[in-house]
Amino acid sequence: MSTSAVVAPLTGLPALLDAVREVAPHLDVRAPSAATAPFAFDAGTVPRHGEADEDGPAVSFPSTVSEVQQLVRLAGRHGVSIVARGAGSGLSGGASATRHQLVVSTDRLDRIVEVSPADEVAVVEPGVLNAALNERLAPLGLFYAPDPASWRISTIGGNIATNAGGLRCAKYGVTRESVLALDVVLADGSLVSIGHRSIKGVTGLDLVSLFVGSEGVLGIVVGATVRIRPLPVARRTVTAFFDSTAAGAAGIGAITASRVRPSVIEFLDEPTLVGIDAAQESGLRARGAALLLIELDGFGIDEQTAELTVALESAGARVRVESDADAETLWELRRSGRRFDDDSWFVGGDVAVPKSRIAEVFAGFPALEERYGVAVSAVAHAGDGNLHPVITLPIPAGADPAAFPAVLHDAADDLVRAALAVGGTVSGEHGIGTVKRELAAEELAERVRVAQLAIKDALDPTGLFNPGKAL
Amino acid sequence: MSTSAVVAPLTGLPALLDAVREVAPHLDVRAPSAATAPFAFDAGTVPRHGEADEDGPAVSFPSTVSEVQQLVRLAGRHGVSIVARGAGSGLSGGASATRHQLVVSTDRLDRIVEVSPADEVAVVEPGVLNAALNERLAPLGLFYAPDPASWRISTIGGNIATNAGGLRCAKYGVTRESVLALDVVLADGSLVSIGHRSIKGVTGLDLVSLFVGSEGVLGIVVGATVRIRPLPVARRTVTAFFDSTAAGAAGIGAITASRVRPSVIEFLDEPTLVGIDAAQESGLRARGAALLLIELDGFGIDEQTAELTVALESAGARVRVESDADAETLWELRRSGRRFDDDSWFVGGDVAVPKSRIAEVFAGFPALEERYGVAVSAVAHAGDGNLHPVITLPIPAGADPAAFPAVLHDAADDLVRAALAVGGTVSGEHGIGTVKRELAAEELAERVRVAQLAIKDALDPTGLFNPGKAL
Repeated sequence: MSTSAVVAPLTGLPALLDAVREVAPHLDVRAPSAATAPFAFDAGTVPRHGEADEDGPAVSFPSTVSEVQQLVRLAGRHGVSIVARGAGSGLSGGASATRHQLVVSTDRLDRIVEVSPADEVAVVEPGVLNAALNERLAPLGLFYAPDPASWRISTIGGNIATNAGGLRCAKYGVTRESVLALDVVLADGSLVSIGHRSIKGVTGLDLVSLFVGSEGVLGIVVGATVRIRPLPVARRTVTAFFDSTAAGAAGIGAITASRVRPSVIEFLDEPTLVGIDAAQESGLRARGAALLLIELDGFGIDEQTAELTVALESAGARVRVESDADAETLWELRRSGRRFDDDSWFVGGDVAVPKSRIAEVFAGFPALEERYGVAVSAVAHAGDGNLHPVITLPIPAGADPAAFPAVLHDAADDLVRAALAVGGTVSGEHGIGTVKRELAAEELAERVRVAQLAIKDALDPTGLFNPGKAL
Repeated sequence: MSTSAVVAPLTGLPALLDAVREVAPHLDVRAPSAATAPFAFDAGTVPRHGEADEDGPAVSFPSTVSEVQQLVRLAGRHGVSIVARGAGSGLSGGASATRHQLVVSTDRLDRIVEVSPADEVAVVEPGVLNAALNERLAPLGLFYAPDPASWRISTIGGNIATNAGGLRCAKYGVTRESVLALDVVLADGSLVSIGHRSIKGVTGLDLVSLFVGSEGVLGIVVGATVRIRPLPVARRTVTAFFDSTAAGAAGIGAITASRVRPSVIEFLDEPTLVGIDAAQESGLRARGAALLLIELDGFGIDEQTAELTVALESAGARVRVESDADAETLWELRRSGRRFDDDSWFVGGDVAVPKSRIAEVFAGFPALEERYGVAVSAVAHAGDGNLHPVITLPIPAGADPAAFPAVLHDAADDLVRAALAVGGTVSGEHGIGTVKRELAAEELAERVRVAQLAIKDALDPTGLFNPGKAL
């Protein structure tokens, strides 16, 4: 702590830590140190190749809502800004923190308070893992729909902060569509309940939707009432292999033109199939150059399969209903994906475009590759136009792995601009955090940015919560 | 106009009207007069029994977005507040206006700009009728899901302002779930685009959701990009009659406990059935004392019917699949409903409660009737816990119909408080407007109200838009 005081004499953190010791010694607050260094990063900003390592932020582990309130009040009094943190699995730097900040971890706010099948809601604390909620619900024949790829390790609170999407949101909507009410600690330390336990409700402005996806800049979510649903009566995995990425992208349109709305539509282009085969010893590329990996669910699964098959075959696909065992393998391959190890530099992306423009984005990859001398490929949550491109470059023998070439970011930025040019957005589901602020500024008109900042100021006039993120 | 100036010398309206004549004579702005009197009210506040009648507000009919911007700038300059108005079919006074205000009608902003089946979106101006959009979509095999009872006469802009619900939102969500992007004119007259044409997008705060349901207090919606969906492959109407209102309410829980999620679940209690029979010469009550009128849609309609039937019969229902002709009659009876004519005073309601508490709300009606000497009944959008109670009292012979007895409002307020007591909300879908501000204040904690007003101030610092409404 004395280190912090020397390095940054202007910070209020030492005084805050003193105050905690004096007036609230029951609070578990850890001073900046090498041990808190991991809290400086999230999964999207953690140094990959052993970059400089310094003390992390102060980190607190409240186990009650009133402890969160107390921390917020103390931090506010000492001018120390707060970064709320779930599992740290975010990919845009939203939970990154400096050694002058206080991280409020939701690790110990991990109770599933209530499951009400009759009201179709669950009430949870923010630190509950997405997977833990679903484990609790499954024996009741219920599920919580939002399923970001990180569902096994990410928290509901983090999912709310980023308005997390996932695979199934093609049918069930993103996190916002599953959040009915929130308990939030505001900048003055007050605790408010917003939203409704009822499915409908229009009393006043929709503060719940405003907080969902706000990346921790408006307050700290300390409780959530979320929608739960009956598990579908049936699920079926269908594969559609195509002779080219372009043909596969056209197949997405064929599904849209049908009346079938699959629960999941994942599109994997040729380099992705090749990469998965290399990493996992699978044989996907032998079946085709592009894959639509589809899950149908609900009633009438045979009728759905029939209509889907007609649509896909008319688009040139080879369609197969997969056995349960093969389906499990395929979804595991999709999730584990290619492996990017220490042999390559890479950057990932998260653009979303109108569905009809997906094909154009893929069609632009070869030009990008040529211009920047990189490799470009993507997986897409095709049901909602959300692409996760990956841009890679092999690390030459003898090169310093930490000397990340700017050309990768240039190519990634170009790709994002291509998405914006067809009416897309710089982030479909990962959020803006620190990583995409500049690109967000290209997407949002200045007047919109001013409006967003005005709302931030209205709720957090001193800039206590996650300054410099998202907006 | 001179009248207004005499009556209210402090208003800026005369100066505004002069300015329009001088600098923007092409704008169609009508001065307050008896002819504009209907614009003082919406369908929820129009005087029923010939109450005092005076000049209405000034009314403008912009036919372009830039005319809206011009009106906002001129009104702002002259300190005249603005009430945006769609069809005026709202039920909470949200579009009511005084003779010192300027109504901005969206009547002439009624173009369907684009329908894109490939992107699953339509782009509309706010004055487009909900029904007009669906007429345009039907031949393409598509539909726009939100279906407030007013869908034939209400506008998409008005639906957005109130976050309108309807019957089908049990399955398809409320208006918010169908709005992807908005063009909005802000208080300084600037035009901003918020949201995304892509299905997903998390760039910055979710201003679209903030505007949906904001009842015109934050800005004027001048364009909307909404989601459209394929018409379901099948629709089927199922009736379930019960021996009592209580049994019917329990039947709602049986549906929840099943895996079937109907597109529509309407619950009609005994007095409602009797009232419809009296008004429409139907024979509903002869079939049972309470009715769940259900629509299934989508794939596997036979499987759905079978599972639904088992669930309902186990709850004591007499279940029947209705023929198309009978179904049409039944839905028409549901929509036309009881008729409340000049023989009765009545007030309507719009509470929503957690689904498991619906039965309790109905069970409380007899005590309300006894305490206040009124008749209480309700129809419920049972799929999302939204009740529309009606409280009535016959007008005694010789009584002045305009002498509306306070006891009706007292009973209605009591009913709302009963809904609040079980975790409900004062408005499921009609909004707060002027009619429910006091009850909203009972629902929302003071700190939440302060936060809402801070957001209003952040976007509309001079209180230009619809002052005194909603918040």
